[in-house]
Amino acid sequence: MQEPGYLHSVEFAVRDYECDIQGVVNNANYQHYLEHARHEFLISKGISFAQLHEDGLELIVIKVEIEYKYPLRSRDRFVVKTNVLREGNIRLVFLQDIYRLHDMKIVVNAKITGAATKNGKPVYPKEVLCKLGLD
Amino acid sequence: MQEPGYLHSVEFAVRDYECDIQGVVNNANYQHYLEHARHEFLISKGISFAQLHEDGLELIVIKVEIEYKYPLRSRDRFVVKTNVLREGNIRLVFLQDIYRLHDMKIVVNAKITGAATKNGKPVYPKEVLCKLGLD
Amino acid sequence: MQEPGYLHSVEFAVRDYECDIQGVVNNANYQHYLEHARHEFLISKGISFAQLHEDGLELIVIKVEIEYKYPLRSRDRFVVKTNVLREGNIRLVFLQDIYRLHDMKIVVNAKITGAATKNGKPVYPKEVLCKLGLD
Amino acid sequence: MQEPGYLHSVEFAVRDYECDIQGVVNNANYQHYLEHARHEFLISKGISFAQLHEDGLELIVIKVEIEYKYPLRSRDRFVVKTNVLREGNIRLVFLQDIYRLHDMKIVVNAKITGAATKNGKPVYPKEVLCKLGLD
Repeated sequence: MQEPGYLHSVEFAVRDYECDIQGVVNNANYQHYLEHARHEFLISKGISFAQLHEDGLELIVIKVEIEYKYPLRSRDRFVVKTNVLREGNIRLVFLQDIYRLHDMKIVVNAKITGAATKNGKPVYPKEVLCKLGLD
Repeated sequence: MQEPGYLHSVEFAVRDYECDIQGVVNNANYQHYLEHARHEFLISKGISFAQLHEDGLELIVIKVEIEYKYPLRSRDRFVVKTNVLREGNIRLVFLQDIYRLHDMKIVVNAKITGAATKNGKPVYPKEVLCKLGLD
Repeated sequence: MQEPGYLHSVEFAVRDYECDIQGVVNNANYQHYLEHARHEFLISKGISFAQLHEDGLELIVIKVEIEYKYPLRSRDRFVVKTNVLREGNIRLVFLQDIYRLHDMKIVVNAKITGAATKNGKPVYPKEVLCKLGLD
Repeated sequence: MQEPGYLHSVEFAVRDYECDIQGVVNNANYQHYLEHARHEFLISKGISFAQLHEDGLELIVIKVEIEYKYPLRSRDRFVVKTNVLREGNIRLVFLQDIYRLHDMKIVVNAKITGAATKNGKPVYPKEVLCKLGLD
């Protein structure tokens, strides 16, 4: 996965309850971190989930691909960096990477594919793409 | 907490992701088990959250008291036993105990206090109490 | 992803706390379901994490690819079906699919790639592969 | 529960995945927030879980009492404030309150009782109490 020019980054610290018996962050929790970072990114672009919901538009994840490169441990500080691309007419691809902060060691590479739906059918999310500069 | 006559019980097995660095189930996860057991109990009594919601009635938890007696570990099987009492006019008290299955060792004693609200105000949940035999 | 002949299946029911604001199971929770199903599968094959750990061998996930086909909702019952293949000398690929039980509608297709490490270095996990019939 | 003089406070923001179908933070997640705040507090006092563990000392929670006063919603910012007292010779009582930041509305009152154990038996945690100024 080639180094993208990131559009957004947000910092976190590992909380102890996110770690499992092996003493490392449980794999599923990285999806939580990535989701939170995407939501922060979209909100920073003026995209309101509440407004979308009122308009009957839902943004959903249809595919995740996550490569685990190095585990985070209790109290590690890290950053999630996010870029977004358009794929075809209706898909958004988020490229998200997680780095441990103190040495910028790569932790996770992720590619998250999303789509917009209205009444359960895929639609072209013109306003969302516009706010992301992708229309 | 005196031994109640239980009205309902449901069995679970610990999943590895519920355990933390110490190799035992994280304290917060017992609240998940207790919540799931209460919902199963209420549904077994014909109480439908969907119907309550349509009627504008919400059942909320206002207090939890949990005593941790013995920790569950990876793959332990256990049972959550539930009883319910009425406290005053509008409160429901759930007495819930968790036992490890193979030796019935006590794991958790819990007292969960709930109330019903309509438009954010406490109400007497006549139909719920009726279905629980507490009206 | 072609229909594999599954080697193992395990049934679950959605618990309310696993659902998010949209009323559907949060995406990260499917990874929990898949993990629990893999562990049940490996244990059914006589593979003991405790024994592996004593031998200094760790099974880790290095990549997950999950396609979300249809969302699960509160109280849905579902099954996770698992197959496993060998990829090269040291990788195990788990093909895991989730189906809603009442109509066998496909919910999730997943491909989880794992590897074995000893002292942080990849190794050929002879005993594990043997027990899986893949050596 | 009387207003304590707090010794420590830490700020959080609600993440969407912490909310449930009702659109509010799931009750169990407050226990995660409280745990994380206690660990931050103890570390700020120079108490190292790793060092305790090497000394064979474990700090465990034996009881939680949580009153839910007002629910947090998606993206709310909040603060967890912590005080600690000694109860008898071997128990520590953490008084923890959660406030919504923008109006300091009380969200949760909690009393968490902990103890120290060595080889499964309660002990007087002299060094911990000393660092907390409670010996």
